Amino acid sequence: MNFISKDFEKLVEELSSLPGVGIKSAGRLAFHIINEPIEKSEALANAIKNAAKNVKHCKICNMITDDEVCSICKNEIRNKKIIMVVENDRDLIAYEKVGKYKGLYHVLGGAISPLLGIGPNELKIKELLKRLTQDVEEVILATNSSIEGEATATYLAKIIKPLNIKVSRIASGVPVGGDIENIDEVTLFRAYEGRVEI
Amino acid sequence: MNFISKDFEKLVEELSSLPGVGIKSAGRLAFHIINEPIEKSEALANAIKNAAKNVKHCKICNMITDDEVCSICKNEIRNKKIIMVVENDRDLIAYEKVGKYKGLYHVLGGAISPLLGIGPNELKIKELLKRLTQDVEEVILATNSSIEGEATATYLAKIIKPLNIKVSRIASGVPVGGDIENIDEVTLFRAYEGRVEI
Repeated sequence: MNFISKDFEKLVEELSSLPGVGIKSAGRLAFHIINEPIEKSEALANAIKNAAKNVKHCKICNMITDDEVCSICKNEIRNKKIIMVVENDRDLIAYEKVGKYKGLYHVLGGAISPLLGIGPNELKIKELLKRLTQDVEEVILATNSSIEGEATATYLAKIIKPLNIKVSRIASGVPVGGDIENIDEVTLFRAYEGRVEI
Repeated sequence: MNFISKDFEKLVEELSSLPGVGIKSAGRLAFHIINEPIEKSEALANAIKNAAKNVKHCKICNMITDDEVCSICKNEIRNKKIIMVVENDRDLIAYEKVGKYKGLYHVLGGAISPLLGIGPNELKIKELLKRLTQDVEEVILATNSSIEGEATATYLAKIIKPLNIKVSRIASGVPVGGDIENIDEVTLFRAYEGRVEI
């Protein structure tokens, strides 16, 4: 392809470095951006700059926030004796959308994955252990039920249990509305193992 | 969901206004952007601003360019007597990638679509007709073979033919590598109608 426009090609290059954006989608997005009114693209560029500059991580739970401490950790009504450990901010948001959990969170920033070179030191585990020196009654391990999430939960349970704090793991089983016939064997086995008396 | 971060939510909102980016992908992209080194997000934001500000449309063919006239129209080696009419910049790039066509282009900026309220006046047709007052021997209609693209080609053929300029339409038929059994009937009929002696 001949040289078309330096600034256009730079934009395509930057967009295609975003996760899930291939070179074709990047081109499509770039055309959209240059054909929009300039105020729209300015707004997008400014939103990127402002978010990158201003969004912090809560110094208690590591969740994104505009302040030093996030609105959940600051909330006086929430139960400070329960901490739910999640892999990332999106998982926290998913639980908050449910709206039933009234304790605090701790965002690890990932899960243990030897393949990706992520060990306990790459995650906010030291920060979690520091929080546990205060009056905490229960730690809920809400990492994903993937291999990495399970390994992380097992690791955390092993180091938290000796502190005489109750450690629980979110239930694994058949999703609500799920068709038994379409569910994988590991999940079905978990659902069977985790059966509760009614 | 509780209020998380003003700047973060603004970023998600802006990203989700891009075509093909839903609220979930916008969230994923936003997390990626805020977790990157700040230089990366600055580079993306600047690329957006620069492209939106600097990328122009060639005053001859309407293709995007950094200058008044694009590198194709400026290229002395290209045959100025043949103009290939395409719907948009991406189609031009697709043809340039083939690298066989040595004439000029004209980017319409879309196709006639009464449903979307796009008539001939919304496209760069006046500009095309102006170019045809110069020494042009052939106009190749390379609009899509969709209903809109066909309608646009028919419309253009009708107004260009009386100017005593050869008008051609790109061939429609079985794509190279295509399995006959999987190809739609209209395409197969076109392939039959457009058969060439060997």
